[in-house]
Amino acid sequence: MTTTPATPATPATPASPDVAGRSEAYADDRRHVFHSWSAQASLDPVVVAGAEGSWFWDESGRRYLDFSSQLVNANIGHQHPAVVEAIAAQARSLTTVAPFHAHEVRSRAARLIAERAPGDLDRVFFTNGGAEATENAVRIARLATGRHKILAAYRSYHGATGGSITLTGEPRRWPSEPGIPGVVHFFGPYPYRSPFHAVDAAEESDRALAHLAEVIALEGPATIAAIIVEPVVGTNGILVPPPGYLAGVRELCDTHGIVFIADEVMSGFGRCGEWFAVDHWGVVPDLICFAKGVNSGYVPLGGVILAPHLADAFAERPYPGGLTYSGHLLGCAAAVASIEAFEAEGILDHVRMLGTEVIGPGLAKLAANHPSVGEVRGLGVFWALELVRDGATREPLVPFNAAGPAAAPMGAVAAACRERGLWPFTHFNRVHVVPPCTISVADARTGLAILDEALTIADGFTTA
Amino acid sequence: MTTTPATPATPATPASPDVAGRSEAYADDRRHVFHSWSAQASLDPVVVAGAEGSWFWDESGRRYLDFSSQLVNANIGHQHPAVVEAIAAQARSLTTVAPFHAHEVRSRAARLIAERAPGDLDRVFFTNGGAEATENAVRIARLATGRHKILAAYRSYHGATGGSITLTGEPRRWPSEPGIPGVVHFFGPYPYRSPFHAVDAAEESDRALAHLAEVIALEGPATIAAIIVEPVVGTNGILVPPPGYLAGVRELCDTHGIVFIADEVMSGFGRCGEWFAVDHWGVVPDLICFAKGVNSGYVPLGGVILAPHLADAFAERPYPGGLTYSGHLLGCAAAVASIEAFEAEGILDHVRMLGTEVIGPGLAKLAANHPSVGEVRGLGVFWALELVRDGATREPLVPFNAAGPAAAPMGAVAAACRERGLWPFTHFNRVHVVPPCTISVADARTGLAILDEALTIADGFTTA
Repeated sequence: MTTTPATPATPATPASPDVAGRSEAYADDRRHVFHSWSAQASLDPVVVAGAEGSWFWDESGRRYLDFSSQLVNANIGHQHPAVVEAIAAQARSLTTVAPFHAHEVRSRAARLIAERAPGDLDRVFFTNGGAEATENAVRIARLATGRHKILAAYRSYHGATGGSITLTGEPRRWPSEPGIPGVVHFFGPYPYRSPFHAVDAAEESDRALAHLAEVIALEGPATIAAIIVEPVVGTNGILVPPPGYLAGVRELCDTHGIVFIADEVMSGFGRCGEWFAVDHWGVVPDLICFAKGVNSGYVPLGGVILAPHLADAFAERPYPGGLTYSGHLLGCAAAVASIEAFEAEGILDHVRMLGTEVIGPGLAKLAANHPSVGEVRGLGVFWALELVRDGATREPLVPFNAAGPAAAPMGAVAAACRERGLWPFTHFNRVHVVPPCTISVADARTGLAILDEALTIADGFTTA
Repeated sequence: MTTTPATPATPATPASPDVAGRSEAYADDRRHVFHSWSAQASLDPVVVAGAEGSWFWDESGRRYLDFSSQLVNANIGHQHPAVVEAIAAQARSLTTVAPFHAHEVRSRAARLIAERAPGDLDRVFFTNGGAEATENAVRIARLATGRHKILAAYRSYHGATGGSITLTGEPRRWPSEPGIPGVVHFFGPYPYRSPFHAVDAAEESDRALAHLAEVIALEGPATIAAIIVEPVVGTNGILVPPPGYLAGVRELCDTHGIVFIADEVMSGFGRCGEWFAVDHWGVVPDLICFAKGVNSGYVPLGGVILAPHLADAFAERPYPGGLTYSGHLLGCAAAVASIEAFEAEGILDHVRMLGTEVIGPGLAKLAANHPSVGEVRGLGVFWALELVRDGATREPLVPFNAAGPAAAPMGAVAAACRERGLWPFTHFNRVHVVPPCTISVADARTGLAILDEALTIADGFTTA
C-alpha cells in the first residue's frame, strides 16, 4: 500500500519522493521501483518512451544515440521488426510450458544455438539470464568432475546471485561476501596495466599463463573443477586477450582435467563479430554461458551450452538444477528470430567491418588527439577508451572503484555525452563504445564525433 | 555443432538419442535441450502444441486437463487473451530498457503490486524469477540489519542459485552443498507428521513457535538477519500453517529486530484466494518474494516487495545487487494485464469458492473413499493429498525422497492420471491439486473424478 510508515527507519529519506510536476510514470517509478546497483534517493531516471535501431527517446521526445546497447544487450538494435513479430506471434500461439515438456520453438532455438557453438558443444540448458547461466555452469562442472574449486579472474563480472557474485572479480562482490566456498581468483592478462610487468602482448600472454599454471599447482590440480573466464572481459575493461592466451588456458584445462567455462554473456552473439568471442581465436571451451545478445534481451533468456562429455555426465543421474522458466517459449522465439535475422542481414560481417574500418580507426584518431585517452582497445562493437590523467604514468582519470566527488571527472564526461544526445557506457575510468551490432556507419560516426567533444572535458583533468 | 564427439566420456550414452519416427521438435529436444532436474537419457517429454484455459495438448491433439498449472505458475490459465494481447502490444511498442531507466509499464506494474501488498510494503525490486527474488531478499536483509545468519525452514524450496538453494530445506539442496555460509534450518509446523509430537493444530503452532524461539536464542538473536518462510509451504507439501503461527513468527521477528521474509513465489497472486497467502492470516512481513502467478509465467518475472524501512536503508548507499532484465517491460506488461484481469473477472472470489465449495469438499470425499489418502489439506487452488500405505501408522506410500523402483507406486498413480487425460503434480508421496485459478467448476470436477479412479491404484499398495 502507499501509506506512509508510522516510524520510518531513516527519517532523512522521505518515503514519497518529491515528484511534483513530473509524469505519472516518473512519479510511480520513484515511489514504487527499487533500482539495481543504486542509492535510491539520488535517482533521477530518464523515462524511456520508445526506441528504434540505435536510438531511444524519452517522454519529451529527446533522442539518444545508444552507445550502451542498454546494458550491452541490444545487439540487434532496438525493436527489430522480425524479432518483435516473432514474440507477438509466439505469445498468441503459446507463451510458456514447463521445463519438463518439449516445444517446437524451444527445440529450434536449442538446435540453432548448438549449430553455431564451437567444436562439439551441442546441448543447451536454458536459463533466464547470465547469472543463472554461470551458477549452473559451476554446478555442472563440479558434479561432472567430482571436484570443488573454481578459478575465476579478477576484473570479471559473472552475475549477482549467491554463486555468480562470488565468481565475480570486482568490487560488486564485496558487499555479498562471504560467498560460496571454493572460489579462487587469479589474474588475467591486461597488457596496459600488466600485473606481470610484461612489456608486450606476447610476454603478457606467457606470463599470465605461467601465473595461472602456478595458481593451479598451488591450489592442487585435482581439486579444481573449472576455470571460468570472460574470453573478452566485458564491464571490467574490454580486455582483449593477447594471442595465445585462450589456447593456453584450454591446454592447462586439458592437462589437468579441468572444465573450461567461457562466460560469453556479454562477448557472445555478435558483439565481437563472431557468434562467440572464442571463435576469434579458434578455441573450444567445455561450457559456454550466454544471455544478452542471444535475443538482445527482448525477452529474458540465458543458458549454458554443454560439450557432450558434460551433458553425458547427467545421462543416467539427474541433473540437480532447474528453474520454472527454463527454455521459456517467448525467449526462445526471440532467439530463433534474432539468429535468423543476424544471418539474413549479414550482421556479423557488418560488425567486423565496423570494428576494423569505422570504430577502431575512429577511436585511434580520438586517442591521437586527446591526451586523456591512455589506450583504445577492442574488436567488433566492443571497445574501451581508458582515460588517464597522465599518458606517461597511466594514472587513471579517476581512482579504482571511485564514487562521489572522486568520480566526478567521469561523471562530467558522461554528462557531456548525454547533453549532446549520446548515451554512453562508463565504468571506473573508462568509456566503453558498445553500440548495437546493427548501427549504421553514419550513426557510429555521429557518436564518435560527440565523444570527440566530450573528451575535451577529460583532457581538462590531465596533468601531463 | 552436431558432430559426434571423438571420445565420449560415457560410451553407454549415445550422443544422438534414438528419435526415429518422431517429430523434428521431439528429435531436436532430445538432441539439443538439456532439461532441469532430470537424468537426460531417460526423458520422453510430451511435445506441447498448444494450450487454452485449464487445458493443454500435444502434437497429436491429445488433451490434458492441467492440474499442475505447469509448475504451479499458470494461475490465470493458459493463453488468457488480455494478457497475451498486452504482451504483443508491449512487444510492438518497446520490449526492453535497462534497469536504470524508467518506463511507464514498469512503473505501473510496481504501483499495482505495491497497492496490493499488505501493510506498508510499497517498493518493488524486479527480478526474472523466484530464485533471484530470494537471493536479493537475503542481500537486502543482511545489509539493512548488518547481521549475517538466515533462518530457513526444512521442507522448503526457495530456488536453485547459490544462495537460494542453500535456503532450500529439502533434498534438492544436497548436491549443491556446501552453499553460502550462515544459513540455519529449523522445523516449521506440519501437524500430520508433527516434528513436535503435538496432538492438534493449536499445540503444533505453540510448539513450532517455541522451537523457533529456541533456535533464535541458541543461534544468537543479534546474529540473525532474517527468517524466511513459505507462508503456505508449496512443493514440499502444501503445509498450511496452523492459526497463530505466522503471527507468532512476526512477533519473534519484531522482538529481535529480525527481517521477516515471506517467500510467496508459489503461494501468492491468487493461489490461496488472496493476493498474498499472508493476507489469509492478516500478517505483514517485511519482504515478500514473488514470481510465477504475478503474470502466470507468460514472461519471466519475479521480485521482492520491500517495506519502507528496508528500502530506505538503501536511500543513501547503493544497493549492491542487480540484473540486466530487472523490471523487463514484457514481464511488467503481462503483470499489469494479469492483475487487472484478476480484478475484472473476480478471480480471487472464484478461487475461494473453488476451495471451499468444490475442491476442498471433493478431496474430502476422496479421502473418505480411499484408504490410501492419509490427509487432505489446502486452501483456494492449493491442495495436497498425502498418500499412505497405512492410515493408522501414516507410513508414506513411498519413502521420503524415493527414486527408481521405490517411487513406483507414485509413478503408477501419475501415469493413471495422464492416461485419463489429467496432468497431475506429484512430489514424494503426495498428489498436489494445483489447477489454474480460473478453472471451471465442471473441469475441476472432471479432474477430481479422474483422481478418484487413479487413487484405486494407490489403494492397491495399502497394507491396512
